[in-house]
Amino acid sequence: MIRPKILITNDDSINAPGIRKLISIMRKFGDVVVVAPDKPQSGMGHAITVATPLRLKTITIEEGYEEYICNGTPVDCVKLAEKAILHGNPDLLVSGINHGSNASINVIYSGTMAAVLEGAIEGVTAIGFSVDDYSWSADFSHVDTFIDKIISNVLENGLPKDTCLNVNIPKLNGSAPKGIKICRQAKAYWDEVFDARTDPHGRDYYWLTGEFVFQDKGDDTDVWALENNYVAVVPIQFDFTAHHAINKLNNYDWNV
Amino acid sequence: MIRPKILITNDDSINAPGIRKLISIMRKFGDVVVVAPDKPQSGMGHAITVATPLRLKTITIEEGYEEYICNGTPVDCVKLAEKAILHGNPDLLVSGINHGSNASINVIYSGTMAAVLEGAIEGVTAIGFSVDDYSWSADFSHVDTFIDKIISNVLENGLPKDTCLNVNIPKLNGSAPKGIKICRQAKAYWDEVFDARTDPHGRDYYWLTGEFVFQDKGDDTDVWALENNYVAVVPIQFDFTAHHAINKLNNYDWNV
Repeated sequence: MIRPKILITNDDSINAPGIRKLISIMRKFGDVVVVAPDKPQSGMGHAITVATPLRLKTITIEEGYEEYICNGTPVDCVKLAEKAILHGNPDLLVSGINHGSNASINVIYSGTMAAVLEGAIEGVTAIGFSVDDYSWSADFSHVDTFIDKIISNVLENGLPKDTCLNVNIPKLNGSAPKGIKICRQAKAYWDEVFDARTDPHGRDYYWLTGEFVFQDKGDDTDVWALENNYVAVVPIQFDFTAHHAINKLNNYDWNV
Repeated sequence: MIRPKILITNDDSINAPGIRKLISIMRKFGDVVVVAPDKPQSGMGHAITVATPLRLKTITIEEGYEEYICNGTPVDCVKLAEKAILHGNPDLLVSGINHGSNASINVIYSGTMAAVLEGAIEGVTAIGFSVDDYSWSADFSHVDTFIDKIISNVLENGLPKDTCLNVNIPKLNGSAPKGIKICRQAKAYWDEVFDARTDPHGRDYYWLTGEFVFQDKGDDTDVWALENNYVAVVPIQFDFTAHHAINKLNNYDWNV
């Protein structure tokens, strides 16, 4: 039997404990190629590098396992892996394990999930994993059973067309998660606070910080699942069209 | 009558002819605050700056018009404008005019459209404008009538909830655009080619380049509209959930 070719990336960088954990899990399932950013790329969204050159360095090449670092974004890593290393699409792309939740609106800012969406755009089966703990020393000891189940399911059954998965795992809090729930993305936003300071040279600067504002009461959301100690699985897609709005807008007068 | 408070940004930077054109149009409609990147931010997607400080410089302050530059991404510009300058949401956010099409899958890579989506997430009425011409010296002489019509319509009627607009205007090609069409996002992807080179120090590097692969035959898409000399207006939204996939995934066995 041919082992699946699995591409792994993330946005916390090659050195993050989360990607090391994901690599150790995925090597059971297939031949692994890791192409990850050489430095943290959190909050990079779907950024690509167009104005500066990209560089790729080989870290490890052995039977069934290769590891590379790239100076670009997570989306650059996916594109470069496919074109300059694999010379084709992988059978599966996994991204993470992100240190911190990518539930709800976080998905739009996340480099980890942008890599997954990039895979989906290219027709690759793709899954992003995150644990709801921003700490570099986040506990990943409870994730194996759930990631194993999700990977097995997806390798066996595939995913609906043009769809990828955003998987968020609760922070370990006494007991293991109660199970896996298929959810929708909760509606929320970040209410930013800019911390204004003055540098030693007398110039003003700002640090971006903020509070997560959540007013979505549904029990079918990813945030609800995390808060109730379930692993949240949201199928996501890359058609941004607000299809329900097309008819409404066609009722406006657009004649010039 | 109180004039609407209009926030303008883009991703081609404060110096781009496209934003100067948009400023000149929008000043007819209300009081304008411009907060734009101090350098090109094309391809930045929904990136935000979390690891380095943000800086804001005042360029102009006069009655009804203010202009600032920011060292961050287009999404940073929106957040910083609302929190550090306007101290609240604007009545309208417009982004662009982008030099180059943001139709189809380009929307996901675009800093111009990320700024618009950021506005929508925060409940701001928001519109992005692009012209299908990547040149710095793109011709904007045909855009006024169409932008005027779209702005008037949206100021008068608003937009459907949680929806913003991605407006793409054809490159001027002999005759003016035939009209405005409400469209859906065409399905397509970029097939990248990495141009591999060696630098003067003997190290390899890559330039990202690629070909737009378009296989969507519908006559209701933004790409069709542009190709047929119509202004394409796509309502877009920030819920990435593939709602149609939830039932299918619930049929998988998720018990661990």
